[in-house]
Amino acid sequence: MKATMKKIIETVPNFSEGRNAVKIRKILDCFTGAKGVKLLDHHKDKDHNRLVVTAAGEPVSIKKAVLAAVDVAVKTIDLRKHKGEHPRMGAVDVIPFVPIRDVSMEEAVAFSLDVAKEIWRSFRVPVFLYEESASRPDRRALPDIRRGEFEGMREKIKDSQWKPDFGDTAVHPTAGVVAVGARRPLVAFNVNLATDSMATATAIARAVRCQSGGLRYCRAIAINLRERGIVQVSMNMTDYTQTPLYRALEMVRMEARRYGVDVIGSEIVGLVPSDAMIESAAYYMSLENFTTDQILENKLAD
Amino acid sequence: MKATMKKIIETVPNFSEGRNAVKIRKILDCFTGAKGVKLLDHHKDKDHNRLVVTAAGEPVSIKKAVLAAVDVAVKTIDLRKHKGEHPRMGAVDVIPFVPIRDVSMEEAVAFSLDVAKEIWRSFRVPVFLYEESASRPDRRALPDIRRGEFEGMREKIKDSQWKPDFGDTAVHPTAGVVAVGARRPLVAFNVNLATDSMATATAIARAVRCQSGGLRYCRAIAINLRERGIVQVSMNMTDYTQTPLYRALEMVRMEARRYGVDVIGSEIVGLVPSDAMIESAAYYMSLENFTTDQILENKLAD
Repeated sequence: MKATMKKIIETVPNFSEGRNAVKIRKILDCFTGAKGVKLLDHHKDKDHNRLVVTAAGEPVSIKKAVLAAVDVAVKTIDLRKHKGEHPRMGAVDVIPFVPIRDVSMEEAVAFSLDVAKEIWRSFRVPVFLYEESASRPDRRALPDIRRGEFEGMREKIKDSQWKPDFGDTAVHPTAGVVAVGARRPLVAFNVNLATDSMATATAIARAVRCQSGGLRYCRAIAINLRERGIVQVSMNMTDYTQTPLYRALEMVRMEARRYGVDVIGSEIVGLVPSDAMIESAAYYMSLENFTTDQILENKLAD
Repeated sequence: MKATMKKIIETVPNFSEGRNAVKIRKILDCFTGAKGVKLLDHHKDKDHNRLVVTAAGEPVSIKKAVLAAVDVAVKTIDLRKHKGEHPRMGAVDVIPFVPIRDVSMEEAVAFSLDVAKEIWRSFRVPVFLYEESASRPDRRALPDIRRGEFEGMREKIKDSQWKPDFGDTAVHPTAGVVAVGARRPLVAFNVNLATDSMATATAIARAVRCQSGGLRYCRAIAINLRERGIVQVSMNMTDYTQTPLYRALEMVRMEARRYGVDVIGSEIVGLVPSDAMIESAAYYMSLENFTTDQILENKLAD
């Protein structure tokens, strides 16, 4: 009797409230109190005046929790009075959905459309689909959609190019608009170099990142770790299933050789899916015919 | 609201019945029908006349399923009539328990004692504790306990040195005795060499295995892969938390250098716990300050 795996989707909704403890608590309660949902992390920032929630669970439960949180945000956050350093266009600014287990990207996109439709239907907040869910290539990148922010959106939304994917061509008076979409999990992966030369780190960052001719799913910048007297290539791996971690690390090492610089070590900031690590182990161990079905926990998951 | 992880124990009970489909089905039903238990694998062998079950789940559920299966085995298997190539001393021959998630070895040992006590109480089958649960060093190894098999056990058990840990000094008339104990998960890990010299593979196997001066938790033999025209060092890693996979691989590589032989690749046979792979990834990537709390799935597990 083979049980099927339990499907898991992660969501990282951003709310435009980073100061009022009561409102923040009400939003978090939508996730902590929900059956089948786990609050993995939350980060509130007073300067940004923004709350970032990370939660995961079964799709049906995640949908319920997210809609409950949107309800709270629309009722309690008034964008007309909102000030903060982070750009924003809505009470709920963006809701990304990340397929984690036994969910294809196609399913995650369909799921995001379902939630988006419901947000318009229930709360009358217009929705832009972005990233993998985008209806057009020029709507993939969130900054392009958000340009002009809440204040500018009142006019921008009337432009036929910026007609929302769900909803009328008028912003919600207090809650603005929201971006919803599916995306790959990001892995924050840094590589430390045995030099204090920022010029070297910058040259290597340019070599490995997609933007300037490097790896397709890699963003990279140079960081000065002054306390340690070294520099770092700080990367965001935007699709580790296509551009694995080991490839980025070995490319940094390979480029660093040009400057006679060694790699001291690397670090992962925050969470990483286990298969990102297992794929890199399989590479370094030259494993033959290995599949993730051989991982005990995958057999156990249901 | 931080949920606690769900504890998982694996068990690999061996039953002395590899031929009768009805009896085998009845034993497997104890695992497939049990809530909180997952049957991961089963292997029946007619020559050995033996059934090996692999199942995992929450401790309380595993205990229930194992006791139900012992009940079936004691009622249906008569060792007086049992013939097979594999040595055996009981209808249920051995029941290992492997701590998988959020269970310490101490807890797994306590759990095995609990099950052992119940097997004697409910079924009047004397129990020998072995491996990590052994009451004396000379009872750690199963072959030492089993020597003489079912037929010889009738006399052996009267010897004060072989008094069972639970039960009378007389075997169960049809079900014999059983060994119960906690042990580490085994990982079957093979390394392929770019040579057809069995002498080289044998020398390397001797160098890396515990028995002849190598790594503490590593057993190794040489294998001839005739079809591929190469040889292999075939290893059983008996405690990957103490002797990680990468250390065995790099030691094989280091010893092979002496003979001018390269490592072609490696393979994992069957299942491997994810942290065995993640630990090796962290080594090869020189990850700084990495902990398995950063694995997304560990955060999700509850």
